[in-house]
Amino acid sequence: MNHEDWVRQEFRELTHSLGFRYTSFEEIETRLDRVRTYMGKQEMEALLVIQKMDFYYLSGTTQDGLLFLPLEGDPLLMIKRELGRAKAESPLKEVVALRSLREIPTLIQAYRNGLPRNLGLECDVLPVNDYLKFQDRFPGLRFMDASPILRETRKIKSPFEIDLMRVAGNIGKKVYQEAKKILREGMTEIEFGGLLEAVAKRHGHEGLLRVRSLNYEAYTWHVLSGPTGGIVSQSDSPMGGLGLSPAFPVGASLRVMRAHEPILVDFGTCYHGYQTDETRMFSIGKLKQKFIDAYKACREIYDAVLEETRPGADCEAIFMKTIQLAEKLGYEDSYLGPPGLQTRFIAHGIGLELNELPFIAQGQSYPLEKGMTFAVEPKIVFPGEGSVGLENTVLVTENGYDILTPVAQSIFQV
Amino acid sequence: MNHEDWVRQEFRELTHSLGFRYTSFEEIETRLDRVRTYMGKQEMEALLVIQKMDFYYLSGTTQDGLLFLPLEGDPLLMIKRELGRAKAESPLKEVVALRSLREIPTLIQAYRNGLPRNLGLECDVLPVNDYLKFQDRFPGLRFMDASPILRETRKIKSPFEIDLMRVAGNIGKKVYQEAKKILREGMTEIEFGGLLEAVAKRHGHEGLLRVRSLNYEAYTWHVLSGPTGGIVSQSDSPMGGLGLSPAFPVGASLRVMRAHEPILVDFGTCYHGYQTDETRMFSIGKLKQKFIDAYKACREIYDAVLEETRPGADCEAIFMKTIQLAEKLGYEDSYLGPPGLQTRFIAHGIGLELNELPFIAQGQSYPLEKGMTFAVEPKIVFPGEGSVGLENTVLVTENGYDILTPVAQSIFQV
Repeated sequence: MNHEDWVRQEFRELTHSLGFRYTSFEEIETRLDRVRTYMGKQEMEALLVIQKMDFYYLSGTTQDGLLFLPLEGDPLLMIKRELGRAKAESPLKEVVALRSLREIPTLIQAYRNGLPRNLGLECDVLPVNDYLKFQDRFPGLRFMDASPILRETRKIKSPFEIDLMRVAGNIGKKVYQEAKKILREGMTEIEFGGLLEAVAKRHGHEGLLRVRSLNYEAYTWHVLSGPTGGIVSQSDSPMGGLGLSPAFPVGASLRVMRAHEPILVDFGTCYHGYQTDETRMFSIGKLKQKFIDAYKACREIYDAVLEETRPGADCEAIFMKTIQLAEKLGYEDSYLGPPGLQTRFIAHGIGLELNELPFIAQGQSYPLEKGMTFAVEPKIVFPGEGSVGLENTVLVTENGYDILTPVAQSIFQV
Repeated sequence: MNHEDWVRQEFRELTHSLGFRYTSFEEIETRLDRVRTYMGKQEMEALLVIQKMDFYYLSGTTQDGLLFLPLEGDPLLMIKRELGRAKAESPLKEVVALRSLREIPTLIQAYRNGLPRNLGLECDVLPVNDYLKFQDRFPGLRFMDASPILRETRKIKSPFEIDLMRVAGNIGKKVYQEAKKILREGMTEIEFGGLLEAVAKRHGHEGLLRVRSLNYEAYTWHVLSGPTGGIVSQSDSPMGGLGLSPAFPVGASLRVMRAHEPILVDFGTCYHGYQTDETRMFSIGKLKQKFIDAYKACREIYDAVLEETRPGADCEAIFMKTIQLAEKLGYEDSYLGPPGLQTRFIAHGIGLELNELPFIAQGQSYPLEKGMTFAVEPKIVFPGEGSVGLENTVLVTENGYDILTPVAQSIFQV
């Protein structure tokens, strides 16, 4: 059978039977309208979208290609591989084959009878060599950084997106519920982490967590036990853990977990590209009192954040309030990391990527808005001993908030 | 306890007890010498290394930072986070704290009494905004693309690197040996893939596979069964599979695997950053004869590649020979993909990344060299029905080759 025919005849039915959900034309239109509003304000005449998650957000597909979005008129989806599947997945009307990047100016010119005077590019992630090639191929055009526009647009989630995040959160719930049955003394951190990931995948978790960055990598097997929980590593996180080698110096290690020490599990799940992130504490036998107390402080700080969570609340003010509370509770030297290495955020925006807007952090003075989603994660770190923490993914609603990661918050003791 | 003291006193012992292997000063010196030879040829006075795997290759650590490498004199390792751990991991002598990217010119100037006239950057992956910032901060400096130099240097593996790849290959061997006990009828592709990954992690696999690319993502759970094996997706691969959603349209899906259909498992493993890649076939009950025959053809093509593998052999010539053989065997319309969608490579270089040099491919006319490592993967694809394939990671030796992924090549039937 021919691949084109098979995709046309069988693909939609097979994917529907397996629960694929496609982005509707109306959903994409709403997103495009928001992007165009920002473009209009900056007099950006067109935008060329390349980065995979921006591309998915505005086209409904992650097949390999680029999206040309003029300020006025329909977007043009140019697909390198695979065209038939892109047509089956994207609700956009103008979908054409792209054999080589050299063709882009010609395709655009033919499509809109001429080139725009300027063009937005995702300059926060686009590699230099691609940029220089675009300069060559679009002589005389002015390039603008479109990444702030795309980040602004994506920071407010639609009901469709929130629904997908709820499914991701429910996969996470199943993982934590099964985790208690899996954990046992003598297991290594990475063995535990691997088994949790297997549970998540069985329930449809997509395996990769995505971050908008050249070097920052995300992963799900963040299991830290006792002293490895006290290790700060390269990530902008209160503690990174030991990891498996100097090449992967974060997350679970081959250390055998022991009784009575804190076991911190920070597990993100992904469904249709949408991620939720959460952290819970485990222990084999009763956890030492020091850590139980610190975990109580994390819960207090977490509750204090939620108390403030509503449209209009200032992100930096919320962060500073948590600093004061941590001091009051006696954890000024361990809250968000050890002295000299403390991070300055308590929550990161989350959706298609783990570092979206908003950041509830120092220097981030802007209001929360309805439809924002963030992962709030108070953590307390004791070098040489371990760390504790609590994390949930939260939606800002009209009057307050809603939790997208509905797992019990007590310590899971086995 | 203070984090700095803990790292100084306990970190080395803990990591040694867990099998961490550090890159020696001599190993790094050899690598730096090779880079400097290429730099000298291009009159590149200095290089600023940012991308994580280049950085690890030349420093021995993946803590967050940048490496300044002058053509003459010792390199300067600048660390944002975490300094103590970087010092414990890297054998380099000059390691300093970097609080902000703004400090880089000052640190370099102080270190070498003045700035170089030009500076190599990894322009194939460095984001535009970072490049523009460097232009601002180093006024008058000429920037050069250093990525070809780094790729050339890294294409020849040292005995230390080969040894790490052998360990990765042995983890893969254990995965395939246990896979036969795990696979059963009624399981979904992703459930099987998740359990294989759990096995790999238990044996020390690092979970993430790395690719040098903005958008290309690698993953281990590439389990394709029956018709999903016939689906081409966005990846430059003979077939991508169905995946879990339009946001993750590659690899294992929620499809339930059935008896007598081809189950293709393409599983990469990673140890200390070094990767091996391999593919084997599975079936529940006896595989249909059509696929057994096609798999025999894959083995013939694979053997033909190995027959040619030795220093001096031309990569493109080897590829063209496989095309001729596939035609002779009657698979011209299914070899490396369905008509119109066939890929034009039979092997990709592999090491710290999955898309290193060499490529045994159309348009890649250069000789194999001793110390190169590549994954050779003949695959045959039937849309609507399934695909078969064989893949091993191969080292080019003085007189021929050595296999780094030593698993039985027969079909695993359960």
